[in-house]
Amino acid sequence: MPIDARRISDRCEALARHSEQPDGLTRVFLSPEQRVVNGLVRGWMGEAGMDTRLDAIGNVVGRYEGERPGLPCLMLGSHLDTVRDAGKYDGMLGVVAAIECVADLHARAVRLPFAVEVVGFADEEGVRFSVTLLGSRAVAGTFDPSVLDKRDASGTAMRDALAASGLDPARIADAERRSEEVLAYAELHIEQGPVLEAEGLPVGVVTAINGGNRFNVEVTGIAGHAGTVPMGLRRDALAAAADCALAIERIARGTPEVVGTVGRIEAFPGAINVIPGKVRFTLDARAPSDELRERVVAAMHGAFDAIAARRDVTIVLTPIWEACTAACSPSLQRQLAEAVHAEGVRVHHLPSGAGHDGMAMIAIAPIGMLFVRCKGGISHHPAEAVSLRDIETGARVLARFIERFAPPHR
Amino acid sequence: MPIDARRISDRCEALARHSEQPDGLTRVFLSPEQRVVNGLVRGWMGEAGMDTRLDAIGNVVGRYEGERPGLPCLMLGSHLDTVRDAGKYDGMLGVVAAIECVADLHARAVRLPFAVEVVGFADEEGVRFSVTLLGSRAVAGTFDPSVLDKRDASGTAMRDALAASGLDPARIADAERRSEEVLAYAELHIEQGPVLEAEGLPVGVVTAINGGNRFNVEVTGIAGHAGTVPMGLRRDALAAAADCALAIERIARGTPEVVGTVGRIEAFPGAINVIPGKVRFTLDARAPSDELRERVVAAMHGAFDAIAARRDVTIVLTPIWEACTAACSPSLQRQLAEAVHAEGVRVHHLPSGAGHDGMAMIAIAPIGMLFVRCKGGISHHPAEAVSLRDIETGARVLARFIERFAPPHR
Repeated sequence: MPIDARRISDRCEALARHSEQPDGLTRVFLSPEQRVVNGLVRGWMGEAGMDTRLDAIGNVVGRYEGERPGLPCLMLGSHLDTVRDAGKYDGMLGVVAAIECVADLHARAVRLPFAVEVVGFADEEGVRFSVTLLGSRAVAGTFDPSVLDKRDASGTAMRDALAASGLDPARIADAERRSEEVLAYAELHIEQGPVLEAEGLPVGVVTAINGGNRFNVEVTGIAGHAGTVPMGLRRDALAAAADCALAIERIARGTPEVVGTVGRIEAFPGAINVIPGKVRFTLDARAPSDELRERVVAAMHGAFDAIAARRDVTIVLTPIWEACTAACSPSLQRQLAEAVHAEGVRVHHLPSGAGHDGMAMIAIAPIGMLFVRCKGGISHHPAEAVSLRDIETGARVLARFIERFAPPHR
Repeated sequence: MPIDARRISDRCEALARHSEQPDGLTRVFLSPEQRVVNGLVRGWMGEAGMDTRLDAIGNVVGRYEGERPGLPCLMLGSHLDTVRDAGKYDGMLGVVAAIECVADLHARAVRLPFAVEVVGFADEEGVRFSVTLLGSRAVAGTFDPSVLDKRDASGTAMRDALAASGLDPARIADAERRSEEVLAYAELHIEQGPVLEAEGLPVGVVTAINGGNRFNVEVTGIAGHAGTVPMGLRRDALAAAADCALAIERIARGTPEVVGTVGRIEAFPGAINVIPGKVRFTLDARAPSDELRERVVAAMHGAFDAIAARRDVTIVLTPIWEACTAACSPSLQRQLAEAVHAEGVRVHHLPSGAGHDGMAMIAIAPIGMLFVRCKGGISHHPAEAVSLRDIETGARVLARFIERFAPPHR
């Protein structure tokens, strides 16, 4: 199969030149830069034999018909927006690699018993309006119209930004696709983590987009003089919080594919010579199944309760976010694994710790994901890098998967 | 002995009425309020048969002659300045109780084989110029003249504040007392901690004013995505810092009378979904002997090194403060203990975790301290409280100690 990895890489570079800042890459939903990029992507799609359109939320959609017009599709895609000061591959690689695969079909005049669509989602990162997955939610029919009133940093409401881009905020539902139209949704994406590099593998098959819970945790003990209160009479909120942080780590470590993180911590009153009477910290826990996630979060709660009892402090958790796991279809995992194996690569399964458009798409179709190794696991950073060889392997696996695709039973 | 605890308490109340703010108590070095208080204290000293003077730094000094004029003295005292929003007993109780003891000698026309002096130090807390122990350092001859250039929050230099109070900044050395003039320095002070309350005791004999070390600690690991980096591949600076905090607690707990505190902590970048790549925290460690303090600090360093090696992070300690232990004279401890026992109170020894004027006075005389129980261990707060009964017991112990005082061998 004549997959042109260099062309994929060059196209990622070409897209990265369209940024709101001259040095570095930032491209947000409905920005002038995004309009330019949409034009480039539609051009490449057309060249690959696809009919293209911009849907009601601003997603670029290309369709390569199957053996006869109007067949249900295998939908491929990823997102064309970026975080601030982003890398060149997060999102874009999946769109460009999918176009390359369709170009290959087109070059060989192959028509499949299903259509192939490639979507470049207009917003996944949620940078502009602080709501993620706007593009894929519109396609999946789970777009919440109340977010149209959200404003960006400059005060522009989403509905006005849509209108200014020639899109009708009243017609976003037109982007919705029916479940019958979409046989499956498959996405190639960089891993954004260090697992494949540690395994020495160019690609891996995703088992699930992990669900997660986030909490604000507040520990209340008794403040006191750091010199005069003996250790045995202390109710030190910081020592209790340290115990909690290590319990989180221990529980997460003890459960494969689960992660738990304390990202923020602050002690009050926060003086060098005062025993902290209060500590606030955050907990982010993720797991590849909802059952496991609930079990792990319950174990962490239980550990906190034991710490609170032992140290005579109070520990209060306030939930601030929860996302269910989006499990990848076993059939799509198997089909992706066969394509990986056919490329002579050892098959490795791993969960996705980061969120992806599949979290929305799962509402209308089985989802599958192929991860491509990125250097040092670094993403959301200008240093994001993928080797040409890994791009080639990833795209070849995706091409094999497409050509042998069999719709999963639902 | 007719110790009038009610009068001691009333005088503490009277002093507390002279504050820079109408609600609450703040009285700093060389303030108008301090001048008023100095006058009250000199009046009470005179009434108790003492000759009084203001020394070169602004300390109030009362002298009750012994069997013949000009004998070396037992010096008693504490400080008359306060922290911001202070309690009524920190410092003042020691001055007023000492005056009461001398008043009792005077009432009974008792002359001792030594003089008794009572000093109300002008500055111990260091609130106005951010330098502590100004009064006692001047008396001990360890006043650093370079601090005369320090400025308060309103920009007034210490030398100008002294001049405005009628004191000559060039003559501070005149406050200095020769070692031969001072047989010992003894101070009654509230405990400012919870030990005596926990022991159910009104007073305790201090073994030492603890020395201490303070460090800024910086832990550097690797930041990463809280979702995508598996637990086994993390170099989490916060988990390492939590390990350090618990090591500090464990080492301090394992060594009687040692304390170790993490009062401040911050994680960077400090986002809920990012593994911290850097954490900064503070360490305050105190011990009742320098040898023990050095051993404990070395043990904490060793624990940090082991944590750094195990977690593949770096931990850098920057020393920011160190104070040597001021050990109380064994002879004075014994004499105070005998006085405690004679009052029918179980003798309990404890170190002082907070700093006191004895830290300066030890340069010219053996020091001793008697702690009086305070409610809930609370100090440096308007809720600071001492019961009338405990004031009485403390003052009676001090009076016994004075009357039976034998100069320690040096």
